[in-house]
Amino acid sequence: MFFDILTIFPDLLDSPLNEGILRIARQEGKIRVEVTNIRDFAHDRHAMTDDRPFGGGEGMVMKPEPLAAALASVQKRQPGGRVVLLSPQGRLYDQRVARELAACSHLVLVCGRYEGVDERFRAAFVDDEISVGDYILTGGELAAMVVVDSVSRLLPGVLGCSASAENDTFSRSLLKHPQYTRPRVFGGCEVPAELLTGDHAVIARYRFLASVRRTIERRPDLIRLELFSPEEMKILKKAGLDRVVAKLQDGCDCCGKGADGC
Amino acid sequence: MFFDILTIFPDLLDSPLNEGILRIARQEGKIRVEVTNIRDFAHDRHAMTDDRPFGGGEGMVMKPEPLAAALASVQKRQPGGRVVLLSPQGRLYDQRVARELAACSHLVLVCGRYEGVDERFRAAFVDDEISVGDYILTGGELAAMVVVDSVSRLLPGVLGCSASAENDTFSRSLLKHPQYTRPRVFGGCEVPAELLTGDHAVIARYRFLASVRRTIERRPDLIRLELFSPEEMKILKKAGLDRVVAKLQDGCDCCGKGADGC
Repeated sequence: MFFDILTIFPDLLDSPLNEGILRIARQEGKIRVEVTNIRDFAHDRHAMTDDRPFGGGEGMVMKPEPLAAALASVQKRQPGGRVVLLSPQGRLYDQRVARELAACSHLVLVCGRYEGVDERFRAAFVDDEISVGDYILTGGELAAMVVVDSVSRLLPGVLGCSASAENDTFSRSLLKHPQYTRPRVFGGCEVPAELLTGDHAVIARYRFLASVRRTIERRPDLIRLELFSPEEMKILKKAGLDRVVAKLQDGCDCCGKGADGC
Repeated sequence: MFFDILTIFPDLLDSPLNEGILRIARQEGKIRVEVTNIRDFAHDRHAMTDDRPFGGGEGMVMKPEPLAAALASVQKRQPGGRVVLLSPQGRLYDQRVARELAACSHLVLVCGRYEGVDERFRAAFVDDEISVGDYILTGGELAAMVVVDSVSRLLPGVLGCSASAENDTFSRSLLKHPQYTRPRVFGGCEVPAELLTGDHAVIARYRFLASVRRTIERRPDLIRLELFSPEEMKILKKAGLDRVVAKLQDGCDCCGKGADGC
């Protein structure tokens, strides 16, 4: 997997790319990341990458030529690749999109800044515009790192244990159950007895119900997307949760929020 | 505004905190950021911050004592502060939450890693659990940076021009209109004529309609949240968009997705 990142703040990406799991993945050749400074492709007198917006208004807009020249340069070195612009106007990034991008062999991530990039660059060169969330960052660099990080960990061999990626929150749409480790008593609180039984079925049932309860409480919208097996429905029924789940799933035919929002 | 960040990868945060707008905000004393290494508070033989989960399963869980000791240390230096755990199980972060956090004077951001943190630490010490999006990162460090970045830019004086923060996407719920800068012709495409008129009313109307069209196309769920003034409704009607907007707003009483999802 090859990530090209185009930015006017290449140094900002230094430490996230050189620490933790990404450092190891790069050293082991599981991923390749090249950072290109858009400013190197600004050929006017002051190497300007931004200019005032036509029509007036606050802030600056990223000029189309340096962006296009930087993109041409990385595509000359490695043709093809999916060009992804990080911006608050993009489609919302989630684990499904991460899996989609993880199937690509080459991503060119373009980091927007200021008031955005010139629309003509976007229209002519961008394959996919992505927003990592409904909030505003000072630039696309952290968003690009979010994409590199979340996509890389899905690639074979990047996490120590491939099961770790599969059991995560959002592999199912349920939130993960609470976790406990040693000591057995902390702050006067014991680890739940079910986890100490050594009985796999008891533990699995406890965790499943804890997951469902947490999801109902915090993110009822996710229950809508969840498919429960007949066996799981039996467990939910026994715990008195079957009606709540059914209501969240079916209460309203049109929305992810379920009956609560109706 | 004071940000404390607790992490086992302090170096990962180096460059994002020391580049761009955050670097300037720190230099000018607009924000203060302290990074604390949780590992310094792990006092067993191997300075372990994680251990296997009770009940079995893949991966490791962050131990409660080093987390609690690290938190006690930063709260001794600066009492109080809102303790925020970054994890995929948290409430979904958005611009509204960013504004809420920007009103705090002290945030303690705890970066989860691996399979999560021990539930007893969360229950006893965490005020707020936040997820920056429905995807999985290798750790909470990038999520913490997303919070520091998006909150900092809302603070007075951090952006060069305060208007820049107010006019962003999500200040209204509409996506931002396309932007254009010089040159006037790029790749054979001219800047839209309306932006060259110099007529403020024409430009404002053009941008408003472009915003609405882009939001309808890409994020119809956001139209639901949008309030249009009577003047704006007139403009929408003239452009033939009033029915689409009304349908998205009212088509379904229960959801953010509007009529499209019904």
